Amino acid sequence: MSGSITIAGLGPGAEALVTPEVTAAVAAATDVIGYIPYVARVAPRPGLTLHPSDNRVELDRSRHALELATQGRRVVVVSSGDPGVFAMASAVFEAVEAGPTAWRDLDIRVLPGITAMLAAAARAGAPLGHDFCTINLSDNLKPWSLIERRLKLAAQADFAMAFYNPRSKARPEGFARTLEVLREACGDARPVIFARAVSTPEEQIRVVPLPQCTPEMADMRTMVIVGNSATRIIERAGAPIVYTPRSVPA
Amino acid sequence: MSGSITIAGLGPGAEALVTPEVTAAVAAATDVIGYIPYVARVAPRPGLTLHPSDNRVELDRSRHALELATQGRRVVVVSSGDPGVFAMASAVFEAVEAGPTAWRDLDIRVLPGITAMLAAAARAGAPLGHDFCTINLSDNLKPWSLIERRLKLAAQADFAMAFYNPRSKARPEGFARTLEVLREACGDARPVIFARAVSTPEEQIRVVPLPQCTPEMADMRTMVIVGNSATRIIERAGAPIVYTPRSVPA
Repeated sequence: MSGSITIAGLGPGAEALVTPEVTAAVAAATDVIGYIPYVARVAPRPGLTLHPSDNRVELDRSRHALELATQGRRVVVVSSGDPGVFAMASAVFEAVEAGPTAWRDLDIRVLPGITAMLAAAARAGAPLGHDFCTINLSDNLKPWSLIERRLKLAAQADFAMAFYNPRSKARPEGFARTLEVLREACGDARPVIFARAVSTPEEQIRVVPLPQCTPEMADMRTMVIVGNSATRIIERAGAPIVYTPRSVPA
Repeated sequence: MSGSITIAGLGPGAEALVTPEVTAAVAAATDVIGYIPYVARVAPRPGLTLHPSDNRVELDRSRHALELATQGRRVVVVSSGDPGVFAMASAVFEAVEAGPTAWRDLDIRVLPGITAMLAAAARAGAPLGHDFCTINLSDNLKPWSLIERRLKLAAQADFAMAFYNPRSKARPEGFARTLEVLREACGDARPVIFARAVSTPEEQIRVVPLPQCTPEMADMRTMVIVGNSATRIIERAGAPIVYTPRSVPA
């Protein structure tokens, strides 16, 4: 048996958002590797070894997965959302590039998933219906000055913005500063969507005008989406609909 | 029976990339509405009326869907990819906002799908593994000057970039100009991915250094992804892997 490594996206939480391609890959795996809560989503069965590991050990986990594949195992690395968006795919390829040449010849596949920003956008309406950008607000792997520079340029470009990892206990200041930068750069009451734990039983969606946003509205389970200057709110009896029109008049 | 309207993403083409949530919505529909090739992906069955319509009639199609829902029908509007990314969701909400108040009280849901850029990125490796932006290169609904401004700001921000609708027979010049702007703004040999008809039998993936790109490499079925300044290529016996590292050194 020749080994393989598949980096698969489990989507934001609900089983109804897992693609059949990913379900089939997990069903055919001999080994499933990933962060503890994602591996917990895979049902144990005979012939399958589960390898849950802690957060922040992405490179170790990647090397472990690659070693198992060279031993002939069918390894699935599980990510939440889409593995290519601030998740495991880049970590695995960093390990491949730095590792033994034999790792390059492995059967490696990435299976896309529903990433959090698209699940969150769908719940709120269509805030990403025009040009947008996607920024990881964690400064664990890049300098904060670069994040701030990107926020300012994104505001100048009038992109809608989707923010991953807006705030954690270890990084409480960054999102507060993000809100300041946006208020200065955008200077208007554009809508901000706080989408927490989308597609899970704890899901909570709030739409707040930028001037009224506070840092505490976000945590690590929250996706934050900021409209562009044309984003509209449709008020109605239920939750409002937030959408960005397709057109920009000349 | 009270009507509903569900705007559902069919993903880029393969059935294995359609979420169970979307499959269930289509199975429960009384009416499926959409652009001809997307409606063609839905199997006819008794009790289901298919309403295929031509391209560029998104607002008419949206009003038709909303009218059917007010008559008590369970309507599914099908989009390729994700309905919130340059697809039908914003069009439906534009119609809702401009239409009769009763339309606001309909049961309206958006079901996310695998959007083309994430399917294309997965096939190439992980080019969108760091901050990125997403731009529709069609100037049918916005001035070309705005697109060019966004390209320049995105290059300044060192975003990886994903381009939808890069080129059509009616708009052959825009993508040629895009390549010029990028060469001037990026000035290096960063990799460009041309991903055509991803996940279909006609799929074709090419990785070309920016200086060697030509406009003819893209058409309306092509997703174009441009790496950022740190994007890496891993050469190997098979197709190269393109990925953007998670880290930016301080």
